Amino acid sequence: MSIPITESITVIDTTLRDGLQIEDRVVPTALKVEIARALVDAGFRHLEIGSFVNPKKVPQMADTAELYRELGSLEDEGVTLYSLVFNAKGAQRAVDAGALQVKLVISASEGHSRSNSDSSIAQAGDRLLAAIQVLKANNVAFEVGTAVSFICPIDGPTPPQNLVSILEPLVAEGAAGVGVADTIGNANPRMVRTGTKAVQQAFPDMPITVHLHDTYNFGIANVVTTLEMGITRFDATLGGLGGCPFAPGAAGNIGSDDLIHLLHREGYSTGIDTEKLAGIRPTLTRAIGHPLSSKLSTIPAVPEPAPIGRASR
Amino acid sequence: MSIPITESITVIDTTLRDGLQIEDRVVPTALKVEIARALVDAGFRHLEIGSFVNPKKVPQMADTAELYRELGSLEDEGVTLYSLVFNAKGAQRAVDAGALQVKLVISASEGHSRSNSDSSIAQAGDRLLAAIQVLKANNVAFEVGTAVSFICPIDGPTPPQNLVSILEPLVAEGAAGVGVADTIGNANPRMVRTGTKAVQQAFPDMPITVHLHDTYNFGIANVVTTLEMGITRFDATLGGLGGCPFAPGAAGNIGSDDLIHLLHREGYSTGIDTEKLAGIRPTLTRAIGHPLSSKLSTIPAVPEPAPIGRASR
Repeated sequence: MSIPITESITVIDTTLRDGLQIEDRVVPTALKVEIARALVDAGFRHLEIGSFVNPKKVPQMADTAELYRELGSLEDEGVTLYSLVFNAKGAQRAVDAGALQVKLVISASEGHSRSNSDSSIAQAGDRLLAAIQVLKANNVAFEVGTAVSFICPIDGPTPPQNLVSILEPLVAEGAAGVGVADTIGNANPRMVRTGTKAVQQAFPDMPITVHLHDTYNFGIANVVTTLEMGITRFDATLGGLGGCPFAPGAAGNIGSDDLIHLLHREGYSTGIDTEKLAGIRPTLTRAIGHPLSSKLSTIPAVPEPAPIGRASR
Repeated sequence: MSIPITESITVIDTTLRDGLQIEDRVVPTALKVEIARALVDAGFRHLEIGSFVNPKKVPQMADTAELYRELGSLEDEGVTLYSLVFNAKGAQRAVDAGALQVKLVISASEGHSRSNSDSSIAQAGDRLLAAIQVLKANNVAFEVGTAVSFICPIDGPTPPQNLVSILEPLVAEGAAGVGVADTIGNANPRMVRTGTKAVQQAFPDMPITVHLHDTYNFGIANVVTTLEMGITRFDATLGGLGGCPFAPGAAGNIGSDDLIHLLHREGYSTGIDTEKLAGIRPTLTRAIGHPLSSKLSTIPAVPEPAPIGRASR
């Protein structure tokens, strides 16, 4: 217990994207900018700020290009801004907005693919390949990831080999990283371990980002399971905001506050100031108009213990 | 993922003891009996039903002897009833009530011991030794366990060797098992692993029960961590009821509903019918007069997925 671990974990904040995309209230751009700047001030170096999707279908993300104009200069200070892209049109919008890197996401189950994008996995994959051509022509880096990577509310458990066969042609185009997502938060640790291991083994040189939700209290357990496998990159939202509009019963993302508390307590560094992070919660709560769901957003903070040997007696 | 695991995990329901002991409302004995019988009907074979403590200080537990009269016959059907005992007087009350086995609990930190029992660990240990003499003279089996086994809200992290030195003289008296408790739910997986391992190594032939709370969303992660170490016995309360009156900020126990969901999903058997278990929640909510806190008590149930290969397409 006293062995110091100095391994650094990257927490990618996706509050402005996955957190806000199903909120009833469309948060004003200025408030999103305020939250993003506060997150950077708290130490985040990776922010997912929006999606280049149909603004009529997802009005919450309609200002993604505007966010690049407001926040783009943060990249000069070492901050990486991500946005989601699903087709060539979205890729061109990302290019036009000045994005330096994007994430491409594809469902790993036919049922989720059809309900989410009204198309088969193959059709969605073709659209991502077309998007990649636009991105490569404009020197925009891209990561590729699967939704419902472990279990789908419609099709049930996702066979791990599906993740590999879906990601392989996209990775072959020159992806900078891969991602696996438990989009509905219904995966148990054994499922997450098996699916993530298949991706690790298929793409041993790729950085892997794990994206977890917390429908059943399995979220932090899934973090610990994947940490043990050497995963060092996690998506999270402040206060556990989020859900999935096309996955009934899905709860919010894992809370970045709970995740970072866990990571620091387990001995990992994140570069994030937890007091500053907690200080952003009131702004976010004001923006969305309802309480957050992470444990640390619902209980009074208890001071962290001193290490053994320095404990008060 | 397709390898079937048939290992059986024992879940000890402590709703009537740790769940109810700090509720403002004293639940009528008849309602406790109804809940206990429903738990047995759902498949539980181990119930912790009360404490033999000062009824003026803890009126919620004043009817423990009466519960033995009402529920004692369940032991003929293979159910094990536990109660907590802290001194010779309590041990004699347990003997008189017809208890066949009890649990002896001692704080693993001086700060918690003083705030919980107004005495040092050594004084509390002497009282347990006196209790053991009464129990042994009457052929009542006993298990011994530590509170604040990993971290104390007053003293900070608990050195693992303290658990061993505190438990050793009690185990030497002929204990049937040992227990470690994260009484305030503030232990992270690394702490739980280190403390539990010290106890495993010191008492390799003893069954070990792990008792977890869920203040910071670490509860289920701590279950997974200790399952990996071979732990097969867990305390839990229905809906995550509970707390600790002498530990500020402590949240409820891990919910038996969330725990059993996790165990079944991970491939373990428990013998417990989750639908019947869910059916008991309204009775418990009525008994206490407020909502429960486990995830499954706060979200609509989502049907369990079919195994891969039998998933709907």
